[in-house]
Amino acid sequence: MAPGNIYLDHAAATPLDERVLEAMQPYFSELFFNPSSPYQPAVAVRRDYEDAKDRLAHCIGAKGDELVMTAGATESINLAFSGVSGHVVTSNIEHDAVLKAAACHDHTLVKSDERGRINAADVQKALRPDTQLVSIQLANNELGTIQPIRDIAAMIREERTRRLERQDATPLYLHTDASQGVGYLDVNVARLGVDMVTINSGKLYGPKQVGLLWTARSVKLIPQIVGGGQERGLRSGTENVAGTIGFARATELVTATQKSESQRTASLRDKAEKELTSAFPSAMVSGHRKHRLPNFLHISFPSIDAERLVFALETNGVLVATGSACAANKGTRSHILAAIGLPPDVADGSLRLSFGHLSTDENTTQAVKHIIDAVRTEQERQK
Amino acid sequence: MAPGNIYLDHAAATPLDERVLEAMQPYFSELFFNPSSPYQPAVAVRRDYEDAKDRLAHCIGAKGDELVMTAGATESINLAFSGVSGHVVTSNIEHDAVLKAAACHDHTLVKSDERGRINAADVQKALRPDTQLVSIQLANNELGTIQPIRDIAAMIREERTRRLERQDATPLYLHTDASQGVGYLDVNVARLGVDMVTINSGKLYGPKQVGLLWTARSVKLIPQIVGGGQERGLRSGTENVAGTIGFARATELVTATQKSESQRTASLRDKAEKELTSAFPSAMVSGHRKHRLPNFLHISFPSIDAERLVFALETNGVLVATGSACAANKGTRSHILAAIGLPPDVADGSLRLSFGHLSTDENTTQAVKHIIDAVRTEQERQK
Repeated sequence: MAPGNIYLDHAAATPLDERVLEAMQPYFSELFFNPSSPYQPAVAVRRDYEDAKDRLAHCIGAKGDELVMTAGATESINLAFSGVSGHVVTSNIEHDAVLKAAACHDHTLVKSDERGRINAADVQKALRPDTQLVSIQLANNELGTIQPIRDIAAMIREERTRRLERQDATPLYLHTDASQGVGYLDVNVARLGVDMVTINSGKLYGPKQVGLLWTARSVKLIPQIVGGGQERGLRSGTENVAGTIGFARATELVTATQKSESQRTASLRDKAEKELTSAFPSAMVSGHRKHRLPNFLHISFPSIDAERLVFALETNGVLVATGSACAANKGTRSHILAAIGLPPDVADGSLRLSFGHLSTDENTTQAVKHIIDAVRTEQERQK
Repeated sequence: MAPGNIYLDHAAATPLDERVLEAMQPYFSELFFNPSSPYQPAVAVRRDYEDAKDRLAHCIGAKGDELVMTAGATESINLAFSGVSGHVVTSNIEHDAVLKAAACHDHTLVKSDERGRINAADVQKALRPDTQLVSIQLANNELGTIQPIRDIAAMIREERTRRLERQDATPLYLHTDASQGVGYLDVNVARLGVDMVTINSGKLYGPKQVGLLWTARSVKLIPQIVGGGQERGLRSGTENVAGTIGFARATELVTATQKSESQRTASLRDKAEKELTSAFPSAMVSGHRKHRLPNFLHISFPSIDAERLVFALETNGVLVATGSACAANKGTRSHILAAIGLPPDVADGSLRLSFGHLSTDENTTQAVKHIIDAVRTEQERQK
């Protein structure tokens, strides 16, 4: 990144942690072997790979052989949906990958409330006798709202018990896309009570194009990519040794600093929020006030064109997103902001600020100043 | 790799070229942006990504927007089969990924001859009115035998013309898995006459877990991974910027040295072949004598246990494969060696030597000496 730039888009992409690159480096060069090769140096590489999976799994309270390594969250999500032959339930504020995967099945979209939160009771109402999968994100990628996954999991356990009691063998699994949240929230699979979890390395200072799907042992999936039978036959292709080793290191690092980094980013975020809402009393902060990722700030300046803001801010080196990174580039209005009922003129004036490793007290102060200037300039222009 | 090791398994994995790592490095750190983000530095990253695809495509005489970037050859192959609703034709010596993808459809396996070569006339005989896809590898991953793709392509063009004449709209495509061969053979898609090509970055000194599927514009595929709609909607998920930039650089590098490196490795291979067959008149070299990758030597020592050879050689730092890397680790006999009719006691004594960047005159001489010693020791042991 050019010196002087202020990056406030950690939810879209994170820079690779230097310690992660260092951990990966040997596997690019001297330890480049195919882990399926029979000679000892390759066997050692396979051991390192398995060890990395164990360490990665340990961060979420799971076992290495319960992970399927993928090329990212989108592939993981698609795999999570692969075993479904019946109905699925998800929400209307999920990431495109979940919505598109759900659209391949008979599905029901549970509606978010106006703070971007999904109610467990609403999920329960959407269940049908043939529902096989519920997929609810851990935290929303645009608003940062944290979902009540434990409540949903408890409700699903009850439904499973009822099915068992009536000797109904229809499976029912809960998948959560935890792409946003690792490093800020507890993602222990047992405590969450889920059956499948998607995690994305590229969002937590790990290498891009690496992800995982954790599944409980009971979950039955259908491989999307067949071949050599790697990853328990669920995802064929030579294993991603360097990527997995980097992913493991990155997850260990963000897990170790979860508490301090949550506090640090929350304090930066709260400061930015306070200053921006003081400067612009008409500004609207979206997302849940309490159940919100500590590093997220979704703020709307009614009647202002956020795209113009982004370009104005960029000339001052401040890099922020309008809505989600996925929707941003398509000139379409975010389905998430529509779902929470934000009026179009408010939605169109929305910035998503996401704090992280590159955020400091000093550059947050500067960024806020630039945002205030940019919004004022836009307001003046419209007079 | 430990100093002193002699690597003769370039067909299983190649070390990342230093120049490739250098090209990728900025995209790990300062240029880490999500290519879908709206601010200028991210837009520049998207431009670099598209530019890398253009350069990569140029190496095979294609256009960047005809490529779908994937996580490797296995994913590419699965995608190539995705559009098929009818019958497919492939051979009995393809890689597991092709065989498993074919097994999901009504399919016919054309038999290889005893040199590992597929005859275009045999492929023609296997065609049915409902055949939609023919998939034949560019070169065999165990024997190095180069397939007559141009002849097969010409035959398929004729069949397509016949279908057109009888107003039969059933599509018929030719896919080739060129995972082995780029850097040694001409992989110009127009000259080959194919409709789809799979290439694997990890086999050509590029980053692992990166591949591509090139498709002619007429080819219709069904996405396996849905979501944000990247890669023309055929493969969703944030683009692999660093991986694609590395892949492009690696492909440019091996394409530029194709002639000299082919000559160099052929000369090392021929020397090894001559010395080994002189030392062991009973040794059998498999694969086509003329149509063979210049860096491949598949040699069998009847009645010798190749696994014991691999372990004996490894203690002297010589790293070679028994059969293919994929079959090697499973304790099963290679389907390819069975297909070419190698008797079990010959097949079980097979080594695959694959030369490449790490091969030199000196270490080839040393490796041959170690192989001769190891085979002699095994022969003595059996007396």
